[in-house]
Amino acid sequence: MKLEQITALSTTADTKIVLMIMDGLGGLPVSLDGLTELETAKTPNMDQLAREGILGQTNPISPGITPGSGPAHLGLFGIDPVAHEVGRGVLEAIGVGLDVHKGDVAVRGNFCTVDTLGNITDRRAGRIPSEVGASLVEKLKPIKIEGVETEIRHVKEYRFALVMRGKNLSPELFETDPQRTGVAPLPVKAKSPEAERTADLFNLWISKAMKILADQPKANALTIRGYATDPGLPGYKEMYGLRAACVAVYPMYRGVAKLVGMDVVQFEGETPSDEFSAVARAWNDYDFFFVHIKKTDSYGEDGNFEGKVKIIEGVDQALPELLQLKPDVLMITGDHSTPAKLKSHSWHPVPFLLWAPATVRPDMQSYFGERACSQGGLGNIYSLDVMPLALAHANRLIKFGA
Amino acid sequence: MKLEQITALSTTADTKIVLMIMDGLGGLPVSLDGLTELETAKTPNMDQLAREGILGQTNPISPGITPGSGPAHLGLFGIDPVAHEVGRGVLEAIGVGLDVHKGDVAVRGNFCTVDTLGNITDRRAGRIPSEVGASLVEKLKPIKIEGVETEIRHVKEYRFALVMRGKNLSPELFETDPQRTGVAPLPVKAKSPEAERTADLFNLWISKAMKILADQPKANALTIRGYATDPGLPGYKEMYGLRAACVAVYPMYRGVAKLVGMDVVQFEGETPSDEFSAVARAWNDYDFFFVHIKKTDSYGEDGNFEGKVKIIEGVDQALPELLQLKPDVLMITGDHSTPAKLKSHSWHPVPFLLWAPATVRPDMQSYFGERACSQGGLGNIYSLDVMPLALAHANRLIKFGA
Repeated sequence: MKLEQITALSTTADTKIVLMIMDGLGGLPVSLDGLTELETAKTPNMDQLAREGILGQTNPISPGITPGSGPAHLGLFGIDPVAHEVGRGVLEAIGVGLDVHKGDVAVRGNFCTVDTLGNITDRRAGRIPSEVGASLVEKLKPIKIEGVETEIRHVKEYRFALVMRGKNLSPELFETDPQRTGVAPLPVKAKSPEAERTADLFNLWISKAMKILADQPKANALTIRGYATDPGLPGYKEMYGLRAACVAVYPMYRGVAKLVGMDVVQFEGETPSDEFSAVARAWNDYDFFFVHIKKTDSYGEDGNFEGKVKIIEGVDQALPELLQLKPDVLMITGDHSTPAKLKSHSWHPVPFLLWAPATVRPDMQSYFGERACSQGGLGNIYSLDVMPLALAHANRLIKFGA
Repeated sequence: MKLEQITALSTTADTKIVLMIMDGLGGLPVSLDGLTELETAKTPNMDQLAREGILGQTNPISPGITPGSGPAHLGLFGIDPVAHEVGRGVLEAIGVGLDVHKGDVAVRGNFCTVDTLGNITDRRAGRIPSEVGASLVEKLKPIKIEGVETEIRHVKEYRFALVMRGKNLSPELFETDPQRTGVAPLPVKAKSPEAERTADLFNLWISKAMKILADQPKANALTIRGYATDPGLPGYKEMYGLRAACVAVYPMYRGVAKLVGMDVVQFEGETPSDEFSAVARAWNDYDFFFVHIKKTDSYGEDGNFEGKVKIIEGVDQALPELLQLKPDVLMITGDHSTPAKLKSHSWHPVPFLLWAPATVRPDMQSYFGERACSQGGLGNIYSLDVMPLALAHANRLIKFGA
């Protein structure tokens, strides 16, 4: 069913929903007869929820498709990630904590190396270390362009994000990276007459930046691409009538949450317990909590099987703090799989647990793990089905038709 | 695959299909470690069919969406219930046994209370008892309007259904219920010039009705809304080449069956055995039988877990009468779930059993129940998949492509 139809069926109720996303939760056994990270982890609390609730597995996009973090989260929030692609510039910018509002233009930037003729010799500036990249970004921060505001932030190594804010800006611009060496970076060109002024403004910023970088041994030039503005996604309030809050340590996930109208809860620390305490403090002010655990994904990307297991166990140990708030609906899942065996995001379906004591139909599963989820009562669902299921179990959807 | 493609693949065969819908069949355990209504019921015959056949669970619309009876049945009949919404007036009218044909306009009516200025003081006429409502409808039956035929029937309490039949009628009308008190009922107004005459005819009917009701203590006025005509759904013959019959006790389900071109089999009594006898008598005249059992839903709505269990057991006891007819395909399912625990329709998937001795691929399940169905060989399907599966198992679908 389409989002606008879900919206039309949404109603209010005095119920609270928690969606805990352990990033990259899904895994693989290292040897074919072994266990996955989640199956290996000792998770007595989640296993109890699995016995009382229902399991399934979600496909973030469709079978075989590996999602980035942006689309993977959008799907879980109920927004079709294939129909609503969030521009790379916006993801890069919100990933480092920059705000991107309607009308702003966000871009991804790369430092590069050019020769004395100005032709590119290395598109990634010899992959300069992050410390160097960060110090260069500091040098570029003072650049001022009349009529607009610019904000730059380092991402990592040779990468940075830049946001331009002002009136009548347009992201309809061609990228400056020629995608090969031996030629100069391209000037910013407009794809439409309305974007001419924005092209001029970016060219002005680039020329000032090039002067500052001119004496660098490696990163003596730059390219920009991925121009994008706030995609204007619908918010939780308008989609579902939910006052929604985000509890996340990493800027990227706070940024995605802000794009769908969630408030970001501020808190100190970065342990699961710190996050659950933040949920507790905000409990009375919101109907929906998105709680994000990052390190399952980080250890997966590092190929650190044991590290990922430990993070999952840490979340499980802290879980009673969340449960004592008595959510009406608690869902535990990942945005995608990040098996340590593959050291990257993957396409494998994601374990999904739904616990809702008043309304759930329990299945036959007795622990939280990939194999149990593949036999779960919910079967294989799409991440787009997650929000309707959450609303239904929280008595927040009325009947369709008579 | 789309309906027109299913139609293109449909072929004839000398096989018979029975679709038995136990309304609201899906349930929930009252306590999280308990059994559902269907799991609790002793159903040796259905369990035998489960062992010989294949199980699955159906989603009437999509995960999380609770359907009304109209859309839930349409889906099982192979018609997309989201794309083909049947108007409220039509559902109300067929629910009390009124026929609605192409060009008729059916509406829902409410008795209401107005003060001496004609302003509404109670939109539901103080929720008059059904006996009062029924006697008022009797008083309105003699109303005649020149050029059209009108038929009115009581629904319950303050509600009635009215059908107007004649030439060039249009349902493009605004409702007369102002949705608040302190103002008078609105006159019927047309949304388009073609509907002007219909508006006049309804206004004429209303003015005559108001005179008859004028001296009533509570129900001294009325409002109408939900104008709709026969949605023009495709019939079983044209969709699937099936001569289809409906065996149902309640008018609503006979009405929905008529909308898709089924013949309604008349019979005495209302037990499962009475219904199966009716199927037996009509056996040679039809290829497809829709058998509807209502009381599973009624007891579910009442919150009567044990009552629902007993109804299921009663159906199981009578089942040999149906089996001795030797259907080629027998499907047993519900249109949606109505857990006694929730006392209402719900979004939970519906247990589905398909038995077809000549063509079925049996799975590993050994009884008919929600948990077994969640592990069934058919997996999670949409109710729209049911008719293609029925046709296939009855050798009534040819190969797609070479």
